[in-house]
Amino acid sequence: MANIKLIVEYDGAGFHGWQKQPNLRTVQGELERVIKIILRRPISPLQAAGRTDAGVHARGQVVTFKVEGELDLYRLTQGVSHLLKGELSVLSACIVPDDFHPGWCATHKLYSYRILRRAAPAVLDARRVWHIGHEMDIELMQRCASMLVGEHDFSSFRDSACTARTTVRKIFSSAFQPDGDQIVYRVIGSGFLKQMVRNIVGTLTDIGRGRMRDRSITEILAAKDRRMAGVTAPPHGLCMEWVSYDPAPQLVVLEDEIKR
Amino acid sequence: MANIKLIVEYDGAGFHGWQKQPNLRTVQGELERVIKIILRRPISPLQAAGRTDAGVHARGQVVTFKVEGELDLYRLTQGVSHLLKGELSVLSACIVPDDFHPGWCATHKLYSYRILRRAAPAVLDARRVWHIGHEMDIELMQRCASMLVGEHDFSSFRDSACTARTTVRKIFSSAFQPDGDQIVYRVIGSGFLKQMVRNIVGTLTDIGRGRMRDRSITEILAAKDRRMAGVTAPPHGLCMEWVSYDPAPQLVVLEDEIKR
Repeated sequence: MANIKLIVEYDGAGFHGWQKQPNLRTVQGELERVIKIILRRPISPLQAAGRTDAGVHARGQVVTFKVEGELDLYRLTQGVSHLLKGELSVLSACIVPDDFHPGWCATHKLYSYRILRRAAPAVLDARRVWHIGHEMDIELMQRCASMLVGEHDFSSFRDSACTARTTVRKIFSSAFQPDGDQIVYRVIGSGFLKQMVRNIVGTLTDIGRGRMRDRSITEILAAKDRRMAGVTAPPHGLCMEWVSYDPAPQLVVLEDEIKR
Repeated sequence: MANIKLIVEYDGAGFHGWQKQPNLRTVQGELERVIKIILRRPISPLQAAGRTDAGVHARGQVVTFKVEGELDLYRLTQGVSHLLKGELSVLSACIVPDDFHPGWCATHKLYSYRILRRAAPAVLDARRVWHIGHEMDIELMQRCASMLVGEHDFSSFRDSACTARTTVRKIFSSAFQPDGDQIVYRVIGSGFLKQMVRNIVGTLTDIGRGRMRDRSITEILAAKDRRMAGVTAPPHGLCMEWVSYDPAPQLVVLEDEIKR
């Protein structure tokens, strides 16, 4: 019984999120379906590093499954990318130890969120950015973003449907970077609660637009109440960039990645 | 009679190129149509900084037209972006001197070309990159790209349908930059012949793949023969980034732009 790890890229627009659901096209459902077609044998249910919501993209989602017998990883990679052409590609495949779990073993995850800041609607990046035509105080947003670094209880930023037992997460890096007429929020954390990144981005943009002058990030965190935070940013601006399994990743690499 | 200058962004996939053609949806044709709807009066034929081919994108195409009477530039901008939503946006509009022509007055144009270098097919950027799964010698391509800087006769790189009277163009900058699993070719020139950038990129990738070991860039330029150069890169990797009308643009700005 081999434990197979895949790194996959997908366009969130093509799927109703990661999680398998009856009568809906999901990443987990489609991936399981095509892997079985290619391998022609049963596989264990797929595990993922993060269960992305409907519409959220991934450039480096990590997925595992277990399967009996020999298999040609190259053929599997090519086959999946071909059967889901343009919607999902397998970037790499390898055999990992039996006890490797893409979610539980993850030490760092990087998510990015793109905001288009201009009056004119999005065209070339329309499927990948949140268009905000209003003025925003980016310096203030930057200061508030940096206040999220550290270990905090993120109850105020989790979706009401979130079932995680513990709500404490550690944030290693949280910052905005300009990219032409866009700004990109990048956050590296030990893990994230359901809709946590979208709620953080929505809150930071509310702050930037002057809608939350009566409360600070510290107060929002302390309240442990979703109603204290701001709007939920739309899913299509969000992308799961990569997952690291190194308990002490080289910060040089993280910094470099963050600058891109 | 006011001369109006627009800067527009468009997705090349939605149009059969810039140039108006009967029974085909083109950028020029659609723009003229919606501007007339909004202004409710005749306008002069649209001029452009560059007549992009079918499939080629633009983030900063410059367009002008002449019109009689007063007009609300803000309303025009909003109206065009709304009527062509998701396909074309007007980034800015202003009144320019009567003798301003977006093509003839241009001093510098920047085009970018994105190549995805990996085995797995493109997903998130599928509409915007040329996917090349083969190994390429990027250092060699970089050296050859830099040899195009300067004033040269680019006959070897022009399309057979090109009707330009002079084939000499000046290249200010020509280089590849890595961007994750992509490399981006950016070229700044005084102007470009028909399909010149796509023929340059195709030739450089042919060189990088070891297909043109028998000839150098210098020999290809000297031959003034299209058959000496390589393949034509597909249009959807190409994007017209910006046009400058400053005879002595600050090189700092150019360098900064090139690094992005």
